[in-house]
Amino acid sequence: MEFVTALVFIFIACGCGIAWAIFNWIAVHKIEIHHKHEGLTEKLQGAEQEKIETLLEIGEHISDGAQAFLREEYTDCSVFIAIMAVALIFVSPWSTLAFVLGAATSMLCGYLGMAIATAANFRTAFCAIRSLADAFQMAYRGGCVMGFLLVSISLSILSLIIIIYNSVLVEEGDLGTLISMFDYVAAYGLGGSTFALFGRVGGGIYTKAADVGADLVGKVEKNLPEDSPKNPATIADNVGDNVGDIAGMGADLFGSFAESTCAALVVSSTQLRVISGDGIISISIGELMYPLMVSAFGIGICILVSGYAVFIQKVTDIHKIESSLKLQLLLSTVALSPIIIGISYWALPSDYMMIQADGTPLLENLKPWHAFVCSLMGLWSGLLIGYFTEYMTSHSYTPVREVAKSCGTGAATNIIYGLALGYLSTIVPIIAIAVTALLSMKLLSFYGVALAALGMLSNLTIGLAIDAYGPISDNAGGIAEMSELGEDVRTSTDALDAAGNTTAAIGKGFAIGSAALVSLSLYGGYLTRIQTFKNDEDEYPYAVGAKIDDPIIFAMLLIGAMLPYAFSAFTMKSVGKAALQMVEEVRRQLHEHPGIYAGTEEPDFRACIAISTKASLKEMIPPGLLVIVTPTAVGLLFGPQAVAGLLPGALISGVQMAISASNTGGAWDNAKKYIEAGFYKNEAGEVKKKGSDEHKAAVIGDTVGDPLKDTSGPSLNILIKLMAILSLVLAETFCKTGWLYSE
Amino acid sequence: MEFVTALVFIFIACGCGIAWAIFNWIAVHKIEIHHKHEGLTEKLQGAEQEKIETLLEIGEHISDGAQAFLREEYTDCSVFIAIMAVALIFVSPWSTLAFVLGAATSMLCGYLGMAIATAANFRTAFCAIRSLADAFQMAYRGGCVMGFLLVSISLSILSLIIIIYNSVLVEEGDLGTLISMFDYVAAYGLGGSTFALFGRVGGGIYTKAADVGADLVGKVEKNLPEDSPKNPATIADNVGDNVGDIAGMGADLFGSFAESTCAALVVSSTQLRVISGDGIISISIGELMYPLMVSAFGIGICILVSGYAVFIQKVTDIHKIESSLKLQLLLSTVALSPIIIGISYWALPSDYMMIQADGTPLLENLKPWHAFVCSLMGLWSGLLIGYFTEYMTSHSYTPVREVAKSCGTGAATNIIYGLALGYLSTIVPIIAIAVTALLSMKLLSFYGVALAALGMLSNLTIGLAIDAYGPISDNAGGIAEMSELGEDVRTSTDALDAAGNTTAAIGKGFAIGSAALVSLSLYGGYLTRIQTFKNDEDEYPYAVGAKIDDPIIFAMLLIGAMLPYAFSAFTMKSVGKAALQMVEEVRRQLHEHPGIYAGTEEPDFRACIAISTKASLKEMIPPGLLVIVTPTAVGLLFGPQAVAGLLPGALISGVQMAISASNTGGAWDNAKKYIEAGFYKNEAGEVKKKGSDEHKAAVIGDTVGDPLKDTSGPSLNILIKLMAILSLVLAETFCKTGWLYSE
Repeated sequence: MEFVTALVFIFIACGCGIAWAIFNWIAVHKIEIHHKHEGLTEKLQGAEQEKIETLLEIGEHISDGAQAFLREEYTDCSVFIAIMAVALIFVSPWSTLAFVLGAATSMLCGYLGMAIATAANFRTAFCAIRSLADAFQMAYRGGCVMGFLLVSISLSILSLIIIIYNSVLVEEGDLGTLISMFDYVAAYGLGGSTFALFGRVGGGIYTKAADVGADLVGKVEKNLPEDSPKNPATIADNVGDNVGDIAGMGADLFGSFAESTCAALVVSSTQLRVISGDGIISISIGELMYPLMVSAFGIGICILVSGYAVFIQKVTDIHKIESSLKLQLLLSTVALSPIIIGISYWALPSDYMMIQADGTPLLENLKPWHAFVCSLMGLWSGLLIGYFTEYMTSHSYTPVREVAKSCGTGAATNIIYGLALGYLSTIVPIIAIAVTALLSMKLLSFYGVALAALGMLSNLTIGLAIDAYGPISDNAGGIAEMSELGEDVRTSTDALDAAGNTTAAIGKGFAIGSAALVSLSLYGGYLTRIQTFKNDEDEYPYAVGAKIDDPIIFAMLLIGAMLPYAFSAFTMKSVGKAALQMVEEVRRQLHEHPGIYAGTEEPDFRACIAISTKASLKEMIPPGLLVIVTPTAVGLLFGPQAVAGLLPGALISGVQMAISASNTGGAWDNAKKYIEAGFYKNEAGEVKKKGSDEHKAAVIGDTVGDPLKDTSGPSLNILIKLMAILSLVLAETFCKTGWLYSE
Repeated sequence: MEFVTALVFIFIACGCGIAWAIFNWIAVHKIEIHHKHEGLTEKLQGAEQEKIETLLEIGEHISDGAQAFLREEYTDCSVFIAIMAVALIFVSPWSTLAFVLGAATSMLCGYLGMAIATAANFRTAFCAIRSLADAFQMAYRGGCVMGFLLVSISLSILSLIIIIYNSVLVEEGDLGTLISMFDYVAAYGLGGSTFALFGRVGGGIYTKAADVGADLVGKVEKNLPEDSPKNPATIADNVGDNVGDIAGMGADLFGSFAESTCAALVVSSTQLRVISGDGIISISIGELMYPLMVSAFGIGICILVSGYAVFIQKVTDIHKIESSLKLQLLLSTVALSPIIIGISYWALPSDYMMIQADGTPLLENLKPWHAFVCSLMGLWSGLLIGYFTEYMTSHSYTPVREVAKSCGTGAATNIIYGLALGYLSTIVPIIAIAVTALLSMKLLSFYGVALAALGMLSNLTIGLAIDAYGPISDNAGGIAEMSELGEDVRTSTDALDAAGNTTAAIGKGFAIGSAALVSLSLYGGYLTRIQTFKNDEDEYPYAVGAKIDDPIIFAMLLIGAMLPYAFSAFTMKSVGKAALQMVEEVRRQLHEHPGIYAGTEEPDFRACIAISTKASLKEMIPPGLLVIVTPTAVGLLFGPQAVAGLLPGALISGVQMAISASNTGGAWDNAKKYIEAGFYKNEAGEVKKKGSDEHKAAVIGDTVGDPLKDTSGPSLNILIKLMAILSLVLAETFCKTGWLYSE
């Protein structure tokens, strides 16, 4: 396929995606909020004006808090990004440029997501007064803005970088310049992931410090309901959902998307070759555009699918919420399958091959079907992981109900059952990832793995939309509670939120699954790089290859597998420490100002926001450095072989921990929601709801799950991806150093 | 060294070890228990006779319960062992014989350990009336019997097998028969580990179902103290300590010992070679006896070291308990170091080499120092792991105190801090294991790793003694409570028990560290085997080697890393389910017989014992089958390469989980003990003890930690070892099958 043709389609798709996002953005903002809305006067019994004003005010507080945090976070991260950018000049100034653009795109996407989420949250609460269907639509539209903006913007900026670098750096027909160009482009992914690391970790600590702190005093000690306006930490908790689950998650998935595209480009430029009629073995840039075309068409299909949810489907019943969201995933997967097959025949050469580092053929006689099988494997394993995650974390099914039942004997059994559920939930996703990796490596080596990752991310817009839907609904529930909008409104928002917990877990499943594949393909790129370097330079002192029985490889596999544990320890303890500070502040306020509990005095929520902000910005540094410094130091001190062991070690251990952490947390949260919704009956057949011992046990599980599912678990994705892409970018440097170890 | 000389020393050492065990056994039994013991009458205020009778009676109940369980467990396991033995006939009848002997030795060691522990526990409680020093001595002597019997018996039986097989099977000067003889001998380790698997899992489920069940109703609901005689599950809990922590742990460490010796023998017979004066490259059986000599001299040194604790050292202060136990480890490590150096020069050829599967040299010009560096690396990393484990799990240091402090904000922060502590505690042991593996592989390939494992286990007698000391003290505390021996006796036994929690964690650290090295050396044996087979058979259809970028290797690494999660999920849920049954039974008894709570009626503890017995025997089957069936099925279906990925995956993931699980559990237990001992003060400076909210939060952590530290964590050792040795024994079979996968 011609480069220009590909670009036209890519930009058309991105344009449509952005237009669709803006359309939804406008629709969200169009909802005018006043208490004389038709049919509302009856529902808002008494003091309507005041409630609506409270709602608007809270919405503003949350938005202000989130903006303030992001400003500080971005300022701090910019310093770090600047330092890394300067260091990267030694690799190449072009890498620096791509790196900075990647980080900037990531920040932009996080910011836009936060902006729409804080606009949609209180409107969702307002719509919930009118009807469940309206509230659902509002929350989902908010999610769509986030999903479509993020993917379209990042794909178009990446394409722009490719256009510019191609015209400046690549000499027509010179493969060497094309290959090194994509090396520079890969720094775009590195930039995205570096920012994402701090976004996820910082946002994760912020949100969970506030959430855990609020719950510990409010729910456990003072018997206040969740999101009570009397709890000074409530606003910080709601701000946290936006900065952690929206901005952090957006940055994370942007990173996955950018990295898998970069991995595909790096691997394919080095290894994918076509034999032309006159026997010359080469490749043109247009023939490498297949991965971007898949993403572009993914945007197009997802517009249609989300249009169905927005215009046609009406969610009138709380039992239909989850299935509507799941349907979005299913529809987009089904619709994308034939499209991907079509693109493969259109965008790929009809006959191609993969070569090894020394130029000899690795795989020959490859056809378009090799590529689409890889992409489809990724796409459908994503769906399988999504559905299985839903099964393990939704309270519609046995696993969560068993966890809820175990609350009957107290918090300890709840924790034991929850941990066991998380461990168990690794089985299906891991087998799905392993089979996908096996087949795609067999078919197209690491290029196949990159395509599988991109296939899994081809309906990322929908994935992001249903994921962002979660925190928006969660916030809406909080705002409804704080504005005292009444029991039935809260029932609607609770139901939206419970579905949101599940879709958040599904989103995390996707994020982890794709991160594993991305990381594996980057690892492939890394191995190819160090082998290429070995062929080019005679003084290269290392054996090349990644044999498990090589002493340094095995030792580093072991150490790599330990990193996710160390990382989780750091992040969880950070949440614990920050939460303790929050608890003290909340206790202090409630103690010194008894009027707060009585409802006659306003709590000082700004003090709580300040604690979360300060703690998270400080605490994100050690885990962040662990991820960046470890592979760099190992590579510089022990050489490229050591890193070739470290990366898969971290990958295979981190992916298990990430899956189990996020599913355990999701299950505990929904076990609590199950009890709150009044579905739980004890042995004697009595319904146990809020305030019962069973509920208290469930709250403890939920609180433990918070840092697991929203801080350490999802940050592990970034750990495994970032270590891999960083090593890829530094591969040549490692080959020249490695002072402490020799074969 | 001559074979006969080696055997003489080995049997002398085993004889001394057994004699020392018998001497202590007699000393334990010599304590006559009656209430007119000198100086006791004042201490036992009122109703002395009755208290002492209760003590004796409870001791008998525990002993009977433990014996009854072991009988049933052994019967059930025998069926399984018989099935596997029959299957092994297809490998070789000699393997079957060694396998059965290994399983039988394991059973015997477990049984003897249980017998001495149940004899020492109530005597320790009795001695605690007189003095702390007496009680400490009694518990430690009990541990010594266990440690010395186990190591001496297993070493002598293994040596006997070698003598018999050597005389029957090996033709003088024929290396081929020598190599295959050690293949058959390896089944001794397989037998030991197979039984250990069921011992650990079954015993672990038994003990924790009883413990968790007893705590949930007794401590949490009814506010009864731990081990209250009013709690029907108390006796089952104490029985559990003996069948899980003593018999199960003994079987586990016997397995490690047998397997590492077998691994050293298998690897060295295949790869270790000496060039004789006339240029012939060969090896004699005597030159392979070095690993057994290290173990033999280990027994001798440890007799001296434990003699110091028994005869010279007096533990008069509760603060000296832990340091006395630690001193035992340190002394044995220091004393063994020069001995191991000496043995290396004495028992090894002065110049030797390692060869590859195809007969070409792998490492040349090897000297005795290569071997002793490996052994010493293992020995000293064991000490480092032990000391670090103590730091992380003893309430004398910051980490556990932080966990205790986090109880101030409730159970949730306690759980979060505890999990973080466990994750963090992997760092040092993993680095120690990784460095040991790296250096020993560099020096002597996988033979070096086997020597490192044996070095770590060379003071196993002491390790086992201080480990078994733990449950004996724990039981003594329970018996003291149930016999109502008074506050100061209980204070002594609590202090002994707290130190026991730490030494149990240290013991687990050793068990896991050695299991990792054992498993790695067995993996090396496995790789050598499949490569040898490749050289021998032309029709062998697979590439050989374990490259991470080989699709099947990577996919299986990922699946292997998932197995410890699946296994932990099974075992933890088993404990949860069995504990729920226990809770119901205890509730039923307390409800139907109010006299029990009032103290006028005896609880029916036999019903609780029956529940634990039945549940554990039923629930040990699925996790047991997972460990045995998975590598077998993967090997048969996907060939030897697949297993070459599966084993390291399980190893590097399992070792992290095992360390973190056992340290988390130990820390929670001791955080609770810290609060119970009255060391904890809240913000306002008030001491919070039993019955406070802080204590309740700590009890929840302790309960969650129970299955982690005593069921799933330690069973993971066996998972990683057993999968490896099973694959080694089946290596040739896998090479002939692998129907579903081809390169």
